[in-house]
Amino acid sequence: MIVVLKPGTPEQKRDQLVSWIEGQGLEVHMSVGKTQTLLGMVGDTSCIDKDLLECLDIVDTVKVVTDPFKLGNRKFHPADSIIDVSGVKFGGDNFPVIAGPCSVESEEQIVAIAKAVKASGARMLRGGAFKPRTSPYDFQGLKADGLELLRIARKETGLPIVSEVMGVEDLPLFEDIDMIQIGARNMQNFNLLKAVGRLNKPVLLKRGLASTLKEFLMSAEYIMAGGNTNVILCERGIRTFGDYMRNTLDLAAIPMLHKLTHLPVIVDPSHATGIAELVRPMALASAACSADGLIIEVHNDPMHAKCDGAQSLTPEAFDDLIKDVMTIRSVAVRK
Amino acid sequence: MIVVLKPGTPEQKRDQLVSWIEGQGLEVHMSVGKTQTLLGMVGDTSCIDKDLLECLDIVDTVKVVTDPFKLGNRKFHPADSIIDVSGVKFGGDNFPVIAGPCSVESEEQIVAIAKAVKASGARMLRGGAFKPRTSPYDFQGLKADGLELLRIARKETGLPIVSEVMGVEDLPLFEDIDMIQIGARNMQNFNLLKAVGRLNKPVLLKRGLASTLKEFLMSAEYIMAGGNTNVILCERGIRTFGDYMRNTLDLAAIPMLHKLTHLPVIVDPSHATGIAELVRPMALASAACSADGLIIEVHNDPMHAKCDGAQSLTPEAFDDLIKDVMTIRSVAVRK
Amino acid sequence: MIVVLKPGTPEQKRDQLVSWIEGQGLEVHMSVGKTQTLLGMVGDTSCIDKDLLECLDIVDTVKVVTDPFKLGNRKFHPADSIIDVSGVKFGGDNFPVIAGPCSVESEEQIVAIAKAVKASGARMLRGGAFKPRTSPYDFQGLKADGLELLRIARKETGLPIVSEVMGVEDLPLFEDIDMIQIGARNMQNFNLLKAVGRLNKPVLLKRGLASTLKEFLMSAEYIMAGGNTNVILCERGIRTFGDYMRNTLDLAAIPMLHKLTHLPVIVDPSHATGIAELVRPMALASAACSADGLIIEVHNDPMHAKCDGAQSLTPEAFDDLIKDVMTIRSVAVRK
Amino acid sequence: MIVVLKPGTPEQKRDQLVSWIEGQGLEVHMSVGKTQTLLGMVGDTSCIDKDLLECLDIVDTVKVVTDPFKLGNRKFHPADSIIDVSGVKFGGDNFPVIAGPCSVESEEQIVAIAKAVKASGARMLRGGAFKPRTSPYDFQGLKADGLELLRIARKETGLPIVSEVMGVEDLPLFEDIDMIQIGARNMQNFNLLKAVGRLNKPVLLKRGLASTLKEFLMSAEYIMAGGNTNVILCERGIRTFGDYMRNTLDLAAIPMLHKLTHLPVIVDPSHATGIAELVRPMALASAACSADGLIIEVHNDPMHAKCDGAQSLTPEAFDDLIKDVMTIRSVAVRK
Repeated sequence: MIVVLKPGTPEQKRDQLVSWIEGQGLEVHMSVGKTQTLLGMVGDTSCIDKDLLECLDIVDTVKVVTDPFKLGNRKFHPADSIIDVSGVKFGGDNFPVIAGPCSVESEEQIVAIAKAVKASGARMLRGGAFKPRTSPYDFQGLKADGLELLRIARKETGLPIVSEVMGVEDLPLFEDIDMIQIGARNMQNFNLLKAVGRLNKPVLLKRGLASTLKEFLMSAEYIMAGGNTNVILCERGIRTFGDYMRNTLDLAAIPMLHKLTHLPVIVDPSHATGIAELVRPMALASAACSADGLIIEVHNDPMHAKCDGAQSLTPEAFDDLIKDVMTIRSVAVRK
Repeated sequence: MIVVLKPGTPEQKRDQLVSWIEGQGLEVHMSVGKTQTLLGMVGDTSCIDKDLLECLDIVDTVKVVTDPFKLGNRKFHPADSIIDVSGVKFGGDNFPVIAGPCSVESEEQIVAIAKAVKASGARMLRGGAFKPRTSPYDFQGLKADGLELLRIARKETGLPIVSEVMGVEDLPLFEDIDMIQIGARNMQNFNLLKAVGRLNKPVLLKRGLASTLKEFLMSAEYIMAGGNTNVILCERGIRTFGDYMRNTLDLAAIPMLHKLTHLPVIVDPSHATGIAELVRPMALASAACSADGLIIEVHNDPMHAKCDGAQSLTPEAFDDLIKDVMTIRSVAVRK
Repeated sequence: MIVVLKPGTPEQKRDQLVSWIEGQGLEVHMSVGKTQTLLGMVGDTSCIDKDLLECLDIVDTVKVVTDPFKLGNRKFHPADSIIDVSGVKFGGDNFPVIAGPCSVESEEQIVAIAKAVKASGARMLRGGAFKPRTSPYDFQGLKADGLELLRIARKETGLPIVSEVMGVEDLPLFEDIDMIQIGARNMQNFNLLKAVGRLNKPVLLKRGLASTLKEFLMSAEYIMAGGNTNVILCERGIRTFGDYMRNTLDLAAIPMLHKLTHLPVIVDPSHATGIAELVRPMALASAACSADGLIIEVHNDPMHAKCDGAQSLTPEAFDDLIKDVMTIRSVAVRK
Repeated sequence: MIVVLKPGTPEQKRDQLVSWIEGQGLEVHMSVGKTQTLLGMVGDTSCIDKDLLECLDIVDTVKVVTDPFKLGNRKFHPADSIIDVSGVKFGGDNFPVIAGPCSVESEEQIVAIAKAVKASGARMLRGGAFKPRTSPYDFQGLKADGLELLRIARKETGLPIVSEVMGVEDLPLFEDIDMIQIGARNMQNFNLLKAVGRLNKPVLLKRGLASTLKEFLMSAEYIMAGGNTNVILCERGIRTFGDYMRNTLDLAAIPMLHKLTHLPVIVDPSHATGIAELVRPMALASAACSADGLIIEVHNDPMHAKCDGAQSLTPEAFDDLIKDVMTIRSVAVRK
């Protein structure tokens, strides 16, 4: 952390500040220039409130120079993390695709979709049992029954399953679910992050609608700080002023996250755009810019899907897509 | 809901769509123009997926014409709601100010601040016991002990208390807290919204960082749909591209929310800006644009506050502010 | 345009409004439902102020159902437009790459770069002569001398050239420049749009930092309405709350623009991210999601570039990139 | 500017960088800590490309510690600037209100409105002659004829006039207009900024839709660097994800700009919200948070205004507003 003092700061006031910082257990390096004086703090600056320092009379600005995320930071862990989800590997040279319906609706539906996406090459099955909906009047998911139907589909196909949890109190129902999803709206539900941090189970963490990359990585840090380092990040679009699409898919975040962290990063092109015909181009683009996998909504009858039918691919469109995704991945793979 | 068909849609396809809509229990009014055909749906359209209709070959666009919020909608409840929090009234002609520290730190601290803000005219005491922090390494609050200290301060001063809850599992600790705060990051924690909707206790709902007014009102609707209509809304800044301030305080949302809903709306100028010297002008501006109250951070020793000291007023600055706020309120009051 | 009346609107007031609308030369279709009355207007509604109608006492909301862009609208011109820039074709099955330095600095520099990028497969040369800079104290470009150096590089290599114009008064200098670029900050400089609309010369129109797709298309419409239909759109990143990158590249805008318009759409991955090592992944992603071309910054000595060196590729990195771009393009091409 | 080196940077590489920086004419202060080495640069760092330094292998981050704006910076000019516009003073203790129609439409209209707003206390008259419109098919203003009508209204009432210029080529028409307005879309039309910087005439500079405060101040700097220091800033709303209003009025920018610059800052509540009934509360709020004036749209017949009727006040509503504005200003005035 670096403190820039205002021009003309009296030496006495400057020395009082230096003493106060040293009193917090930090070393101070002073650079006195012609127009500016800088105080560089060395040591653990996490106890220092940057904003508060900036409010002092003699302080012009305060600059933070260390990343607040540690466990997820590639600087301290240069190699890609490989996360194993019941045999399916994420990270490194792997590129698994997760597919399935937005909501689990019936045994017939989920088993049929699971078989179809497996045949096309999907490695995991997704399906919502607890559904976060903006309106209390919308379908909220089959809940425990939905999870049970996912287990049946897993048994029929062998595909590991991932489903979203919406609160700490529902976690016991997820004991044998292969991967737990934390949705975008819960990315900063810190109680939930801490609770899954105590589990020994992979977590798919979706980026919040308005979260910076730093906040995204700090939420992963919450889980890892609890002892659970099996975190997979998922970019799914951010909120902007855009007019024609639900969200703005931030694909440049993929290579940037690869610089910042060793955790795998996958993309959800279905929620990002909300429009089925944009799923294909954005899935291809994700593979082209070094994503570590995809999670895609597939429904065998989009017209009658209980939610988000508009963004679901048919099994045929999914089958057509996955081949091209794999070809592009092989051309673009991070060197 | 209105469906605009593409030019040149064959009559047969159009009639199929009309039949399908009528099959969902809705009445259809058709307007056939020279270049456009419109289908107006009358009835409960909540079962219709707008996005899905837009994906149909023959559909150009779909327009939603009814508000999705019902219980909070001023159209169906024209008079201002008055929410009583242990004798302190919000809404209508009232203008209560809530004040207190970001975090409860000690008995001495919270009691001293409570006495000071009461003397200046504050009607309720705020204080964080459970603290949502971006980093797992930051101070997380005194938790149950913090709530206990708030109770002591209430006993000493008679001020009702409000504190933030971060998860359903912590709710039992809040049984005798006068008002429960749902923080910005939990505005769409639907499990938590449903849980407080089952209580008979006022809820202070803060606007999410990236939430539209419609989403904000839908989150209030979650609480009200559970039977608890004692909801107070709080504008506290949204996330934009801004450079010098933490958030962008959206003050025009206050009169706009008054148009849309009968619920009281207060403003938090402290979190909105993150800078103590901006609290005064933004508090005055809030009073000028018809807010129903304020929630302001006050700390007796901002330099040593455990969090957010930079945005806290001293008791002296608060005392100075509150008089001018009341004068401005009296000039500006909604006519 | 559809007007939704408030519940309980008196018939007399409703009929007055209908008469007023008919007085503007429009046909009105009325749908009277149990709770809502809709007025559908048929005809040229461009004379009607939507916002004003919404302010009437009896009006609940007004919905616009036609696109405001006509000449660029794919509905009225289903086939891709092919724009010919001195023999280089954009649109349809073509995928030209434009490359060159941010700023033209010297004859030696621009000729060397032009030869290098041509050898790698670039089809056009870019180079800034007039530079829009946030600060008046930054390098503003070589201006007319820079254009002259571009002409020399064109003569040496045969590559057509594109360069940015910053105002109507500079247009005479661009007479023999093959394509004129309108930069992001001038996307709504309507005087400039009208002026290039009167030319018979291709225009590269960059998307404004905060412009919606509708506004982007309306700016293209300004140029086309003047008679110049040779417009190529360029996505180059939008402004969001993002922390690590200069802008957020909105790649989903590419397939969405293809739905809305017949004009070609290319991508500038250099300005979008501001970071050289992100240019490769985002160029590949652009090719994967059906962009019609790329414009990429290449500099032979990024450390000493006069501006934007940080986002420039070396000729070697560009050479390495362009092969993979073409492979991906061939896999992903719109079917 | 401060360079933070990566941990483990070899001394040789570090010294090469130090030599390179010194070669640019800067002094370097090195702080070697246990885990971090900082290089503080002292001198004129405007020649250094921050982004480029950040791309070097050995550099972790680069922090800029000086403001890029000089002439507008309050640090170097602590007293408020007072700008005199034909006798009307902006800045310091003054609070002039500018009022008038969005567009000048006829002599009768502009004279009637001018007389009405003068009677209510307005000190200047606004009126658009050149209109920036998103669509080329919308009314574009009366142009030179509109300016002539403004001159007539000035003669009739004595009110100085302000009108928007859209390009350098139109400036000669503005010779005797009292203040020139640069609209939000032209805030970074650098040619236009330079041109008005060469005039000896007050400029009303509106904040761009997506401009940060730093960019806003840098655009003012362009004008001032040309020799024209008569710049008045105008906050008029920024673009966000908001749903019910046209823009988000960023009122906290007012006190923040007062910290950063000595230039006067006024507010345009009409364009910020786009809704007449929000103009009153936002005008009051502007006065409450230390704005230096207001610019408000007033039309004597909003239903038939050629543009933006929806956001215009009637003369009666304006008269009612202005008294309360002045009362609030007197309570809230910066101490």
